[in-house]
Amino acid sequence: MPNFTLKANAQAARAGELHTGHGTVKTPFLMPVATKGSVKLLSNEEVESTGTQCLISNAFILSMKPGLYVIEKHKGLHNFMEWKRPLFTDSGGFQVLSKEFCLGLSDEGVRFRNPFTGKSSVFSPEHSIEIQNRLGSDVAMCLDDVPHAGEGAERVRDAVKRTIEWAKRCKEAHSNKKQMLFGIAQGGINKELREECTKKIIELGFDGVALGGLSIGETKGKMFDAIGSSIGIIPQDKPRYLMGVGSLEEMLKAISLGVDCFDSCFATRTARHGRAFTSKGNINIDSAVHRLDLSPLDEGCGCFVCKKYSRSYIHHLFRTKEENAGKYLTYHNIFFVQNVLAKARKQIVEGTFRD
Amino acid sequence: MPNFTLKANAQAARAGELHTGHGTVKTPFLMPVATKGSVKLLSNEEVESTGTQCLISNAFILSMKPGLYVIEKHKGLHNFMEWKRPLFTDSGGFQVLSKEFCLGLSDEGVRFRNPFTGKSSVFSPEHSIEIQNRLGSDVAMCLDDVPHAGEGAERVRDAVKRTIEWAKRCKEAHSNKKQMLFGIAQGGINKELREECTKKIIELGFDGVALGGLSIGETKGKMFDAIGSSIGIIPQDKPRYLMGVGSLEEMLKAISLGVDCFDSCFATRTARHGRAFTSKGNINIDSAVHRLDLSPLDEGCGCFVCKKYSRSYIHHLFRTKEENAGKYLTYHNIFFVQNVLAKARKQIVEGTFRD
Repeated sequence: MPNFTLKANAQAARAGELHTGHGTVKTPFLMPVATKGSVKLLSNEEVESTGTQCLISNAFILSMKPGLYVIEKHKGLHNFMEWKRPLFTDSGGFQVLSKEFCLGLSDEGVRFRNPFTGKSSVFSPEHSIEIQNRLGSDVAMCLDDVPHAGEGAERVRDAVKRTIEWAKRCKEAHSNKKQMLFGIAQGGINKELREECTKKIIELGFDGVALGGLSIGETKGKMFDAIGSSIGIIPQDKPRYLMGVGSLEEMLKAISLGVDCFDSCFATRTARHGRAFTSKGNINIDSAVHRLDLSPLDEGCGCFVCKKYSRSYIHHLFRTKEENAGKYLTYHNIFFVQNVLAKARKQIVEGTFRD
Repeated sequence: MPNFTLKANAQAARAGELHTGHGTVKTPFLMPVATKGSVKLLSNEEVESTGTQCLISNAFILSMKPGLYVIEKHKGLHNFMEWKRPLFTDSGGFQVLSKEFCLGLSDEGVRFRNPFTGKSSVFSPEHSIEIQNRLGSDVAMCLDDVPHAGEGAERVRDAVKRTIEWAKRCKEAHSNKKQMLFGIAQGGINKELREECTKKIIELGFDGVALGGLSIGETKGKMFDAIGSSIGIIPQDKPRYLMGVGSLEEMLKAISLGVDCFDSCFATRTARHGRAFTSKGNINIDSAVHRLDLSPLDEGCGCFVCKKYSRSYIHHLFRTKEENAGKYLTYHNIFFVQNVLAKARKQIVEGTFRD
């Protein structure tokens, strides 16, 4: 059986199935982030009941803490975190290159400082893949070179070149036959570079193709131009993963362009800051307008938070710094988004999907 | 039907039923605290599944934030916090007398500073009861005068006198016929004062009698002496509530002396500090000994945390400051305690209960 089965098209939008060692994921889908092996404020039981099919953890972060040895003692990341559904790991390219960790970048890899041990080490494509092989996630991601937003054309060109070289080395290093490996295309918002990088990544023959280095500060228009200029090149039988995009509006637009997969901390982080998704746009639960509002976060939402709690109550919890405010908002936001995506999948299959 | 039915004795230990407008509570029982209308880090669904029969909220705290008006808009505290089982409210005597709030104490009441408005007001017995009447909890508590640990005999004597006067005024002010009212006996660790106060409280004819002002710094021996010197005076048909005691060892000892009801933040607060209850004593999940420990928090525990997660995983979450560490420990601790109390109830009924 192929890893990915395309089931239906509605213009460029696609509905399909990604088959993993831990079950099938219906596409398009969103992965909430469990960076350190846990979705913040929710138990896995709760995450499952939001309709979440798949999570993504961070190989780089987990390799520092708790360390590979601890996770291998549990016979892999699924067992360690007790998540039995499909699971991606991100290589950690984006994190290791951040100011928090990065000491220097070369073709060999990224020299970084481990904040727990104080030691400096090189994080190479081989290192990243070995970690992910051993974590045993269902889908591993290549280590890529991600330029920061606004960096010049030369840096973006270098990053594309390095990303392609690293992708080759990742493919060579990859040895876990139960695990898929996705390549990542860079190129910033430069159409030619993105097209070139996407083609090279496709040629290398990965199980899926990710669009990386977007949604990091560029305008939405430029982001969608970059997606549009490269997504059409990707063969129909490969899943397409737009990294780091998780707002509903952007996901629906990206789905209409042919994207199948998303990961984002948007629904969860924004919840901890008091924002709730609703069918009439986002609301800020901290606002005094909710003090006496007996209505649920969203009238049409079927989640347990909306079935039970008033905006007034959640406003009170938020104002009095009770963590349950963030918890209820997190649950609602993930449930709300997963519900919209489930509808989108249905509409694509029925041919009624419109951006 | 009487509010309280005694079902069985095993020496001084008692098993009974407290009948409230929101159902029956089997005694002896522990109320986790939902001071601001929410048990920290757990949804009500989770709290219910720990075997918790009843919660306690704080009338004084809730009257400041969100304010009575907001809760009345929801038609009472049960609806506001969406807790459909029995619910106590504490008057807030202990809190209003703390350094955080108290500006002065007189026979009229406690002058306190509202930290949200900056205003100073008097919190009187009548005020406390009016708030609790309007919150609509199943059991209201009298406002009492609680001396701090180590205060001299004269202050304790004054507090006893004032507590009795305030209890009379509370009883007079109480007007919610669907709500029980419990009196509170003070007297510190002074046997005569405690006996005197308990007798006066009993004479006033409340629905239950609480032992207050204990477990605030005195030795355990002196605390149990104080309980022993007053509990025998309370008629068998009245429920006896030992306030602020929640460690397993102390609860079991108190049950053997005839206590029926407890409230405590011990199980939840200690969880947030990384402590887990086990059948072999408490463990500190922060300790490096748990780094590679694949066993559950407690081998014999049937809670979902123990069924799924390893100590190693929870240790990792605690060390990386994921709130889910506190959440899982909170769930386990409450479940563990409620399970021990359920066994104690069964043993009392079967006549096999031993301290």
